[in-house]
Amino acid sequence: MEGPSRVVVERVRPEIDCGAFAIKRLAGETLVVEADILVDGHDALSGEVLYRHVPEENWLSAPMKALGNDRWRGEFRATEPGQYEYTVQGWIDRFGTWRREMIRRVASEQDVHVECLSGANLIEDAASRAAGEDASKLRDLARMLRDQTDGGRGAGMALTEEVATLVQQYPDRRFAGRHAKPLRLVVDRERAGFSAWYEIFPRSCSSESGRHGTLRDCEARLPYIASMGFDVLYLPPVHPIGHTFRKGRNNETAAAAGDVGSPWAIGSEDGGHTSIHPDLGTMDDFKRLISKAKEYGLEIALDLAFQCSPDHPYVRQHPEWFRHRPDGTIQYAENPPKKYQDIFPLDFESPEWWELWQELKRVIVFWIDHGVAILRVDNPHTKALPFWEWVIAEIKQEHPEVLFLAEAFTRPRLMYRLAKLGFSQSYTYFTWRNTKEELTRYFRELTETEVREFLRPNLWPNTPDILPEFLQVGGRAAFMMRLVLAATLGANYGIYGPAFELCENAPREQGGEEYINSEKYELKRWDLSSAWSLKDFIARVNRIRRENPALHRDANLRFHETDNPAVICYSKATDDLSDIIIVICNLDAAHTQAGWVTLDLGALGLDATRTFQAHDLLGDGRYLWHGSHNYFELVPGSLPAHVMKVRKWVRTERDFDYYL
Amino acid sequence: MEGPSRVVVERVRPEIDCGAFAIKRLAGETLVVEADILVDGHDALSGEVLYRHVPEENWLSAPMKALGNDRWRGEFRATEPGQYEYTVQGWIDRFGTWRREMIRRVASEQDVHVECLSGANLIEDAASRAAGEDASKLRDLARMLRDQTDGGRGAGMALTEEVATLVQQYPDRRFAGRHAKPLRLVVDRERAGFSAWYEIFPRSCSSESGRHGTLRDCEARLPYIASMGFDVLYLPPVHPIGHTFRKGRNNETAAAAGDVGSPWAIGSEDGGHTSIHPDLGTMDDFKRLISKAKEYGLEIALDLAFQCSPDHPYVRQHPEWFRHRPDGTIQYAENPPKKYQDIFPLDFESPEWWELWQELKRVIVFWIDHGVAILRVDNPHTKALPFWEWVIAEIKQEHPEVLFLAEAFTRPRLMYRLAKLGFSQSYTYFTWRNTKEELTRYFRELTETEVREFLRPNLWPNTPDILPEFLQVGGRAAFMMRLVLAATLGANYGIYGPAFELCENAPREQGGEEYINSEKYELKRWDLSSAWSLKDFIARVNRIRRENPALHRDANLRFHETDNPAVICYSKATDDLSDIIIVICNLDAAHTQAGWVTLDLGALGLDATRTFQAHDLLGDGRYLWHGSHNYFELVPGSLPAHVMKVRKWVRTERDFDYYL
Repeated sequence: MEGPSRVVVERVRPEIDCGAFAIKRLAGETLVVEADILVDGHDALSGEVLYRHVPEENWLSAPMKALGNDRWRGEFRATEPGQYEYTVQGWIDRFGTWRREMIRRVASEQDVHVECLSGANLIEDAASRAAGEDASKLRDLARMLRDQTDGGRGAGMALTEEVATLVQQYPDRRFAGRHAKPLRLVVDRERAGFSAWYEIFPRSCSSESGRHGTLRDCEARLPYIASMGFDVLYLPPVHPIGHTFRKGRNNETAAAAGDVGSPWAIGSEDGGHTSIHPDLGTMDDFKRLISKAKEYGLEIALDLAFQCSPDHPYVRQHPEWFRHRPDGTIQYAENPPKKYQDIFPLDFESPEWWELWQELKRVIVFWIDHGVAILRVDNPHTKALPFWEWVIAEIKQEHPEVLFLAEAFTRPRLMYRLAKLGFSQSYTYFTWRNTKEELTRYFRELTETEVREFLRPNLWPNTPDILPEFLQVGGRAAFMMRLVLAATLGANYGIYGPAFELCENAPREQGGEEYINSEKYELKRWDLSSAWSLKDFIARVNRIRRENPALHRDANLRFHETDNPAVICYSKATDDLSDIIIVICNLDAAHTQAGWVTLDLGALGLDATRTFQAHDLLGDGRYLWHGSHNYFELVPGSLPAHVMKVRKWVRTERDFDYYL
Repeated sequence: MEGPSRVVVERVRPEIDCGAFAIKRLAGETLVVEADILVDGHDALSGEVLYRHVPEENWLSAPMKALGNDRWRGEFRATEPGQYEYTVQGWIDRFGTWRREMIRRVASEQDVHVECLSGANLIEDAASRAAGEDASKLRDLARMLRDQTDGGRGAGMALTEEVATLVQQYPDRRFAGRHAKPLRLVVDRERAGFSAWYEIFPRSCSSESGRHGTLRDCEARLPYIASMGFDVLYLPPVHPIGHTFRKGRNNETAAAAGDVGSPWAIGSEDGGHTSIHPDLGTMDDFKRLISKAKEYGLEIALDLAFQCSPDHPYVRQHPEWFRHRPDGTIQYAENPPKKYQDIFPLDFESPEWWELWQELKRVIVFWIDHGVAILRVDNPHTKALPFWEWVIAEIKQEHPEVLFLAEAFTRPRLMYRLAKLGFSQSYTYFTWRNTKEELTRYFRELTETEVREFLRPNLWPNTPDILPEFLQVGGRAAFMMRLVLAATLGANYGIYGPAFELCENAPREQGGEEYINSEKYELKRWDLSSAWSLKDFIARVNRIRRENPALHRDANLRFHETDNPAVICYSKATDDLSDIIIVICNLDAAHTQAGWVTLDLGALGLDATRTFQAHDLLGDGRYLWHGSHNYFELVPGSLPAHVMKVRKWVRTERDFDYYL
């Protein structure tokens, strides 16, 4: 029963599924909150955003402004990672109502004797909520207004903007109306929103052909990786690998002697999800890698693949965590008619589900305790959704710095659900979006709809599982194009290397996306000094990313028209327009493409009447552009894209004093 | 803690503000419900809409079908007025999953021995939930599948569609996932969705000039009103009128002797909101009017104006229900500098608010007990919103047949809030929407957005307060146009008569919308037999409405293009397309307008290759139209609009047998 409260609040935004899920922001970012605040009749209103950093119980307040049509807006800054709550409340601004009406009364020369008394009462009420100098100021004013011995001077003063501001500092919120349910906000550290990932198989880091690489070998690779400008180094599972039904090279059903098996077939007599594969080294080596990486500005991301080889200790210790077939054997993974007998999925419907959840949480905590704060989750869409919602919330309550990347290549609603329930970043369909129309439509969905409130895209041109057709057929130019797109369309992106920088593009079979002789099943030695390597190009792109804050965000993406269907153009700018980047990318790996771009100058804060310099940070060309319509020409293999920084103040004769 | 349940349900639609408010339907209508049903992995799913007629506790179930992309749809029919709840649940269709995989296994000639046992177990589980013949059928099948002594015949049978359907009748819903919160649906009787209102001042129904009309006089007017085809007769307040500060003719501040005052200045020594004005007659006269009206197919709607004259009994009995000024007087209504000293608003912030709410509810119940089931609420937006939400819910719980029309001409969000919180119908901005662009934009908002789920528009071309400029300047043709628009754009509409049918168009002042010599302040005698009267035209329009079910709904409105900005075209059709009405209306009251319409034939289910007959039910013209592009010519004053019924099967030579 609301009783005598007459103010109602509705349509608070942002909000995901009626507050079922938190929206996401980065530490230091501002959250803009809007709401409708309504009251019957014609009273003036005030509104505020209330927010708190959980578990803090006291609400902080940020004022809201009326936008017209009963819509209000306010904002607050979330400084620390963690969980926040926010809501909106509104109340009747009785002094504001009085003042607005009083101004009209005075203008029409009404007798305002009684109304002055009403005003005096309101000011006295405010005084009773104020203290110190403000309180006495307000009491004086109320007295003047009540006495009216000053020939109307009291009334005049009471109507000033200054007095209104003072009275409104001590509002009567007794009958405030508040939005039914506090909404949630999860604030992550900056790397959740801006990161460049590099994926590598440590066992292929050996300097000698045929020898199993180790974590120490991987350590030796750090300078190379850091020199390309990456900041997250993601390792496929580093755990012992099963023997039973081990897959051979090129995913052969039977492994030959010496075949190393897939790192995702986790668990053997040497241990499971909290052990290091003996051939990679020891837990000490792992800790050392973490700390060495840090010296190079690299953070290690581990793979979280919650599945077991038949040799995993869980299989003996907890057979109840697996599904059993009517013949008593444990159900292996399959997608009929394909069988994956080297993998036992965990059964999230097990009667012992609660023990299973606890154990999986223990695995995550184990690695956090060993210095890992980023987890790339393998196929989260094949594990129970409520489990993820629970475990991510549990972990982030203790460790708000931990980030989870969802490797879910599945149906859109399921990908969105995973993002909503708590994953910090998500793999996307970018991997298969190649044309201008595909890219534009998809990225508008990601950055212009409510999706941007809960899903942070992490763009991968390739992965160990996916060598997309565009890279297979487009040669080195295709790799350059896809890198530029990934690194500039997305604030978060990653590549699987060295396959990527060496432009590895041979599929196992025609029409497939698997690499031939994939590292997933064998040791590999890469020629990092190949003249073909894109490592310098990648380093340049990553440097441009770091130096330009416009590229550190996703929601600021804007597309611009080009008259050539094979060329895409988009921009990103900081809110204050101090950094503006325009990307023009050829999407045709075979031909030079030229044409005209039509910039939305308004979105870029550019003046149609002035020339500006478009400085291509990639090719270092500098172009004098004027107005919205400008020419481009992009050559695959040498200049597949422009990443242009707008430099506004090109001088003209009008800048000289004598011109004025 | 969801535990081992893996299915989640989200985005259930329709839904208003996260289920804070009910959506609306009419008795007998079908509610189509959609939702996303998601599960990790690749299991097959089933889903159902659950619904119940409050206070019934048991849920009824309607099956859902997958639409693709994880979206599901189901529907149920709400037969009775009252409140319903609905929600969606989904569960894993284990047999469906087994069957789909089994078909692929068989196709690739795998050994399916163990899988047959799995299937047999699933069928036995279903048998344990079944009874009678189904149970034994299922048990037989499970046995055949388990034994496999029939050379695979059991396996073959288990894969048939028929068996799948049988097993799915006995699903295992133990781990079903359900939408968090049941949503609400309010079902109203048919008149809530289709009604033609006529507003009249009973005191002007006298047959002798100068004599105060009575309810008996109003009774004598019923045949006239019924002959025009209306079904709701709405009376301004029939209560005693205050004397203090009574307004004179044309809203003069001081009343002259004999001035009758405004019916909205309610209350005198003769009583308040539950009394009849002595000059109108007695309570018995009122009851008699209700029953006589019913004989003519007319239902009486009363005005609910919760405000008081200074002479209202409440003022003496309950001074605490009013706001007091610092000088001890009661605060009258005002919109500075305007003062309405004849009106005291009720104070919904009174400490005695609960007693006030109870009393106002008592007033409503009083009139319901006297046979009134439709209430037109005067200015609900100037009374506390939580009060309306409470009182409408309270009333409808006991009396689901009662309808409330919100007369709120205010800001859009407030109008929508009133509709959401429970009003059955709402006045709209139609009154001021005249151009094609204005009408199209507004009616698309009302009928194509979520607004259609909670707001039922009631369109009024005029009211005693509003003589719109278009009617002031457009003459008789303007009245015809606005009538056709109101009656066909809206399933609910109304006019204030006889001012409307007599084309009364003189404003009190230039630039204002008040009628001169308004009935609000004086007795009036109307010449109903005037040759100018639109009564026959109105009767024809109302007959067309009754006879064509396409015009009984709002959400089926579709606009079609015309090449003439002064002409609007739209259609309404029943779901089965058995009744299709196309309206083409001239919006220019001064000139004949002609041009071409481009019909969206797909929306109308029409064949572009066949001629159809467009039968103008208004002018009785019959036009042979072909394809989407057709000519029209509309003459203000004689044929301002077409209201065309599509008659599809115009014969051609192709209909003769010999043509084949």
